[in-house]
Amino acid sequence: MGGPEIERLIELLGKLPGLGPRSARRAALGLLRQPQARLLPLANAMEQAARTVRTCARCGNLDSRDPCTVCSDPNRDQGLICVVEGVGDLWALERAGVHRGLYHVLGGTLSPLGGIGPEDLNLSPLLARLEAGGVREVILALGATVEGATTQHWLSERLAPSGATISRVGQGVPMGGALDVLDDGTLAAALMARRAS
Amino acid sequence: MGGPEIERLIELLGKLPGLGPRSARRAALGLLRQPQARLLPLANAMEQAARTVRTCARCGNLDSRDPCTVCSDPNRDQGLICVVEGVGDLWALERAGVHRGLYHVLGGTLSPLGGIGPEDLNLSPLLARLEAGGVREVILALGATVEGATTQHWLSERLAPSGATISRVGQGVPMGGALDVLDDGTLAAALMARRAS
Repeated sequence: MGGPEIERLIELLGKLPGLGPRSARRAALGLLRQPQARLLPLANAMEQAARTVRTCARCGNLDSRDPCTVCSDPNRDQGLICVVEGVGDLWALERAGVHRGLYHVLGGTLSPLGGIGPEDLNLSPLLARLEAGGVREVILALGATVEGATTQHWLSERLAPSGATISRVGQGVPMGGALDVLDDGTLAAALMARRAS
Repeated sequence: MGGPEIERLIELLGKLPGLGPRSARRAALGLLRQPQARLLPLANAMEQAARTVRTCARCGNLDSRDPCTVCSDPNRDQGLICVVEGVGDLWALERAGVHRGLYHVLGGTLSPLGGIGPEDLNLSPLLARLEAGGVREVILALGATVEGATTQHWLSERLAPSGATISRVGQGVPMGGALDVLDDGTLAAALMARRAS
């Protein structure tokens, strides 16, 4: 059709979440029409991101610095840690601007059926942070799914001996909903209505 | 949130046709999770495409060779040219495998209201191809829109002196389509284009 370069571009674009074969072709065409203005800048942004972005060793966030921008910010409440399932959830909370503490990204939820146990989660660094002291409260901001609830209960018990208050996000998270698709107001309400877990 | 590199990646992904801000974030996250396996290969494919792909000087197709793969294929009917609005239309016809001749990409349609005149289309190379001789038929495969119809009428008259047969794609009920979901214009065209059964 247009050589192997175009075929490969369409193939890889089609693997992006949210893009099927048809929209991948449309995206490729839009980019190929403006190689200098659109295709190269996106290629460079990707290369730059691939070279610089890493996982924060402290909290599990993705950032071009390690410790990440959130962990490095002295103005954030160092005694308050919000535990989320994934980086997308962290992004959603940051967009909403409703959490002024730090985060901890679990990288998943417990799923006995899916064979995902505590050893598969980013758990040891969280325990180390609590043992280091200075953490007043841990907010469990997990999705209202079966796995989210399982993980929340398990974490509540596991973290209780640390002495920190363990709370969880409350009203506002719809049943069966994932955190990263919620609107800002719902996220704010959920954080405000947190209860002892 | 995660540094300027991530912000820029999301911003540029969000400009792809078919990706809004939310799906751009999802795509960025999917890529950032596997920088070596997914982000870098896509960046390289884009760079490669930007470096090699150009517009075929003969027909207006996008290809890493010039003349393009279609124009260079000696097995294709050199006397039959299919005129399309954009490269996406050429791709669609090639996927269908229904045209064994060459193409000519106009790069748009006439739009008096939009201020797009004949001088804005890839027209001179088409006239040059007809003047060079050997073209038996020109098929106008333009969309069934006001602009498509305008362009088709104008081109029919403009190309008539060349001596080649000027035809246009048929209009009617799409394959697999039910009658009761079609718009009035399509139904009218289908009735007009009726043939002995």
